[in-house]
Amino acid sequence: MTAAATAEDARHMAHALALGRRTRGQCWPNPAVGCVIVRDNRIVGRGWTQPGGRPHAETEALRMAGPAARGATAYVTLEPCSHHGRTPPCADALVEVGIARVVAAIGDRDPRVSGAGFARLREAGIEVVTDVLAEQAQDDLGGFFLRIDQGRPWLTLKLALSLDGRIATATGESRWITGPEARRAVHALRASHDAVMVGAGTARADDPALTVRGFGDRRQPVRVAVSRHLDLPLMGQLARTAREVPVWVCHGADVTAPLREAWTGLGARLLPCAVTAGRVDPLAVLQALGAEGITRVFCEGGGQLAASLLAADLVDELQVFGAGLALGAEGQPGLGALGIERLAEAPRFRLRALDAVGGDTRQVWRRAA
Amino acid sequence: MTAAATAEDARHMAHALALGRRTRGQCWPNPAVGCVIVRDNRIVGRGWTQPGGRPHAETEALRMAGPAARGATAYVTLEPCSHHGRTPPCADALVEVGIARVVAAIGDRDPRVSGAGFARLREAGIEVVTDVLAEQAQDDLGGFFLRIDQGRPWLTLKLALSLDGRIATATGESRWITGPEARRAVHALRASHDAVMVGAGTARADDPALTVRGFGDRRQPVRVAVSRHLDLPLMGQLARTAREVPVWVCHGADVTAPLREAWTGLGARLLPCAVTAGRVDPLAVLQALGAEGITRVFCEGGGQLAASLLAADLVDELQVFGAGLALGAEGQPGLGALGIERLAEAPRFRLRALDAVGGDTRQVWRRAA
Repeated sequence: MTAAATAEDARHMAHALALGRRTRGQCWPNPAVGCVIVRDNRIVGRGWTQPGGRPHAETEALRMAGPAARGATAYVTLEPCSHHGRTPPCADALVEVGIARVVAAIGDRDPRVSGAGFARLREAGIEVVTDVLAEQAQDDLGGFFLRIDQGRPWLTLKLALSLDGRIATATGESRWITGPEARRAVHALRASHDAVMVGAGTARADDPALTVRGFGDRRQPVRVAVSRHLDLPLMGQLARTAREVPVWVCHGADVTAPLREAWTGLGARLLPCAVTAGRVDPLAVLQALGAEGITRVFCEGGGQLAASLLAADLVDELQVFGAGLALGAEGQPGLGALGIERLAEAPRFRLRALDAVGGDTRQVWRRAA
Repeated sequence: MTAAATAEDARHMAHALALGRRTRGQCWPNPAVGCVIVRDNRIVGRGWTQPGGRPHAETEALRMAGPAARGATAYVTLEPCSHHGRTPPCADALVEVGIARVVAAIGDRDPRVSGAGFARLREAGIEVVTDVLAEQAQDDLGGFFLRIDQGRPWLTLKLALSLDGRIATATGESRWITGPEARRAVHALRASHDAVMVGAGTARADDPALTVRGFGDRRQPVRVAVSRHLDLPLMGQLARTAREVPVWVCHGADVTAPLREAWTGLGARLLPCAVTAGRVDPLAVLQALGAEGITRVFCEGGGQLAASLLAADLVDELQVFGAGLALGAEGQPGLGALGIERLAEAPRFRLRALDAVGGDTRQVWRRAA
């Protein structure tokens, strides 16, 4: 936080950050930004990136503020854009209406913006304060930044486990291990991600719809299935609804033309990926999704895909739902083999949140630093 | 709570219950009772069952109160005893010093006391109020009551698991999955139980001492190993220290005389138990321990013993410590096979407590009603 930031600034920024989180999962490839405009200690405008990525948060907040924006302070969770894209630059808009001061949480790392947004504001005589609640902004916009920095989206891995780490009985019964409150929390998590991803085994065994249900009419996340041989059920839920909600399949390059045509004909999009050690390479999958603009991926298993993501150190966050029942060693494990011999090799996470959800527990873990 | 109990009564009872919990694990076969004596709204005496089970809580509190006990109210977490055991009855002692009112959390179910303690007090003209915080008392004294009602002790099962329910890598490395804070919490749990129990596999693989360390000089829990064939390491920690801290071995009836003699010679106590389906019967183990006066058992695994206790519906409480690391499907499972095919058959628990312990989580689950 630079010297000029006050406690009041932090309070307004926390508000802007909360607004920004509203459309996470609905505005990719754009970042989910929030903006609050304050004049004489009164909030005169609020905005957030709209579903689909436009209008931007600043545009929305300025529209609401109208003439009250003149001389006001704008709180933005990300450096305002300075490049002419499909919309005019937000930095210009802030200058034009006569904003006096801009407080930003974090600088953009998009090479088209990085620093240029702040420079444009300062050139126009606007006071600019940066790095206010930067850590929270880095967290909220983690997927947007990861895609810029590493070309891949943020990956959240969900595990819904019995007390002893199982996801189904020996006979494959898995519905339901966790209760309705936990399942609703899973739908909320789907809603805050750009894409929901499963492996082929889960797509075949559970035939999931992978849509967000119970949260009103909204832009649905892209549904991603990872299947080396593209051998997913052609009569399954994903196949039947691929024209309504996008289905993308990440597959190996060596699949047969008839299968490719079948899935394309159903309306699915095919993303060929490299194969490593007999499986679709997990980093290649995430890079393919990043290239398409996806910034946040929610993986719901199965155990093989989860294990390959963990083994490749690609899991940024773990959402573990734990149910109060035991299934025993003959039950199906929530994670496949990791190839670990020593404890020192195990992927490690630090606890971020812990609470009860209905009769189940929910643990949020983040990759250990 | 009877009509005559006040909020003040509940407050003093909560205090008495907290005192009673102090010697849990150290006073078996006696219950860990607490007592507070209050006169003119001032606490004039406090007592709790002493290590070894005597003196009783009332005796301690009356000794502290001295002449101030006359006309006072005594809060006791369990109906005062009325039978002549190794100590004179507490009910008589309360009468003799001139206590005016007795508030009790719960009636005793020991057939030598049940109701007779309250009757003795009432005969002497003392006002008796019962069922104040009875639920908490039932909980605190659960092992004492289970032994009376079912002839077996309370069983707490500990699991210290990776995120995916594993207790060791494929090569058997298990030290340490959880951090030092969680391990200290395990020692505190050992201290609050009369006995600490492991299966033969764990005794062989980990060679644990099973003592309470880091909590000062105190009565140690009995160490119990369950081993059908009595094939425990004769040079292991249990064998070497059996004369310092009791070691009891629950074994099948068909063990050889030389092995029996070797363990008896080392100072261990042998408890022959019935064998069911090739294993020492878990209910027979608990009944044997109950017959010896044990009221609370803390089982620390391994997976086979834990599974057999769960399958027999003998687990009253689960203490699950969860570490932020993944070991994969080739790791060793924390629970053995349960023989479950359908989710409806799975042993179920309800969440009682959830918190972070160092970098790990701790979940407390109780048998579902």
